[in-house]
Amino acid sequence: MEAGERLVIFLSEEETRALVTRELAYEAALSALLEAADGGVLFPAVVGHGSSPANRFTVKSAAAARAAGVKVGSYWPGNTERGLPRHNSVILLFDQSVGRVAAVVEAGFANAYRTAAADAVAADVLARPDARSLAVFGTGPQAWHECLALARVRDLSVVHVVARDAARGARFVADLAAEGVAAVLTGPEEACRSADVIVTATTARAPLFEAGWVRPGTHVASMGSDGKGKQELPVELLASARLFCDWPAQSVAIGEFQHVPDARPTAVGDVLAGRATGRSSPDDVTVFDSSGIALQDLHLGVALLRAAGHTPPPVG
Amino acid sequence: MEAGERLVIFLSEEETRALVTRELAYEAALSALLEAADGGVLFPAVVGHGSSPANRFTVKSAAAARAAGVKVGSYWPGNTERGLPRHNSVILLFDQSVGRVAAVVEAGFANAYRTAAADAVAADVLARPDARSLAVFGTGPQAWHECLALARVRDLSVVHVVARDAARGARFVADLAAEGVAAVLTGPEEACRSADVIVTATTARAPLFEAGWVRPGTHVASMGSDGKGKQELPVELLASARLFCDWPAQSVAIGEFQHVPDARPTAVGDVLAGRATGRSSPDDVTVFDSSGIALQDLHLGVALLRAAGHTPPPVG
Repeated sequence: MEAGERLVIFLSEEETRALVTRELAYEAALSALLEAADGGVLFPAVVGHGSSPANRFTVKSAAAARAAGVKVGSYWPGNTERGLPRHNSVILLFDQSVGRVAAVVEAGFANAYRTAAADAVAADVLARPDARSLAVFGTGPQAWHECLALARVRDLSVVHVVARDAARGARFVADLAAEGVAAVLTGPEEACRSADVIVTATTARAPLFEAGWVRPGTHVASMGSDGKGKQELPVELLASARLFCDWPAQSVAIGEFQHVPDARPTAVGDVLAGRATGRSSPDDVTVFDSSGIALQDLHLGVALLRAAGHTPPPVG
Repeated sequence: MEAGERLVIFLSEEETRALVTRELAYEAALSALLEAADGGVLFPAVVGHGSSPANRFTVKSAAAARAAGVKVGSYWPGNTERGLPRHNSVILLFDQSVGRVAAVVEAGFANAYRTAAADAVAADVLARPDARSLAVFGTGPQAWHECLALARVRDLSVVHVVARDAARGARFVADLAAEGVAAVLTGPEEACRSADVIVTATTARAPLFEAGWVRPGTHVASMGSDGKGKQELPVELLASARLFCDWPAQSVAIGEFQHVPDARPTAVGDVLAGRATGRSSPDDVTVFDSSGIALQDLHLGVALLRAAGHTPPPVG
């Protein structure tokens, strides 16, 4: 660029992959969830696709005091055959003093950190302080990041891994062990009956376990239910549990709570800010539904810019 | 970037301002309108805003054989006081072979060329070949670009300028003269009664002229009606005219034809491709409603990349 030209900051996928840490993602998720419950505005999400309808992208946008912008997430299923990640993400941040996009942040790899971090923030405020045992449904990349993000907020003694595919499950357990997290492959009932925290990170469209298997005091996190018909949790559990989420309107429309008539979940940001009650007793079952909001992406983008030594764009 | 990293092409506002020409914009609009009527898909538009609700942005996305991507347009009204343009635009183009955003093209200045070019493409196929007299409602930047774009497709003998503000109108007339386009300041009735082509480029919410003032054979272009309640043309005119637009579903929802019960406008791309009839006689009144579609932006982005010497991203 020549002198006098306005600079658009660009962070490449390779740069953000090197910059992202669980701590950075956690702090970004914390500030995003706080803003979401304190004046943040989400605009309707758009689901688009490429020339081939099999290749999908979503466009989510938001505005809040600390950031306004757009996140474009993409899902190209054929990438797997080429050894490439199926999910990619680009975050655009406005310079709100002039209304121009001032920063473009590729964050495909970092996106999994972002999503897991939101669950970790919620678990940290909602799960019992003495929670030690984690059950995880799913063995995909997001399940992996959930385990590592939760291991930062609770002193986990064991992770019970529930896998549809035994070989994948065994690899997942071994990989966790290599990260210093003790894990075992378990059936769904045993996993739930021994869990203090249950995380579901699957693409299920029917409940993964029975409500009766869940002990009093358990915290349950359903990750990424974000479409009509998606379901991971038994409705009977939701009927008697305390319900929390990132964004209530979205959670009851396309998240896990679409299956609960007249559900009125609490925004976890209100709990984090002390405006709402979270867990009220050691015997509460708490449920956090994370359908994902653009403010998480915008705050992640700001955090990555700072980590790269840039000044984030001016706010409104 | 280091070797081995994937390159995202970035074209700055300053670069595209220097690259855009009316011919480039015309060719991009032509190919976009053709694709819109031939398998192109538009996804729902989102209207967002900044931390201050006065600052607005729109997110539009589309997919077609030649391009898939997203356009973020912004409107920051306070920019005028600082001598900055109120409208800005960023175009994102997917590399459809891997589902990553491969090009980011700032196109705020070029956006007015894009919009005017769509009207010029439509006028070229719908207006009488011997049209010489243009009436233009509005004296803003878009009205300006409409005049210059239309002057490329018809040998205009005079432009009748209808202005709410006489001083602005006089400046507009003088500026057109400096471009070699003869123009006079006229009242709305005289302008319409002498026009072969009428262009409206205002933010009106009520008709700007009466249907009885429009001569047989006139082509009318309504530019940029893209919201509930916006209106520039008299409904009586639309009832008897042949109706065309860029994207029928959008035009009847938020464009000029929202005011016509059961309107079934023809996509101008079908006329351009020879699949539909345009003007059927010299006495037809033809109306083109341009509410604006993301495919125009994507094709403009591709054209700007080519002009800058880049290879556009792989398609689906």
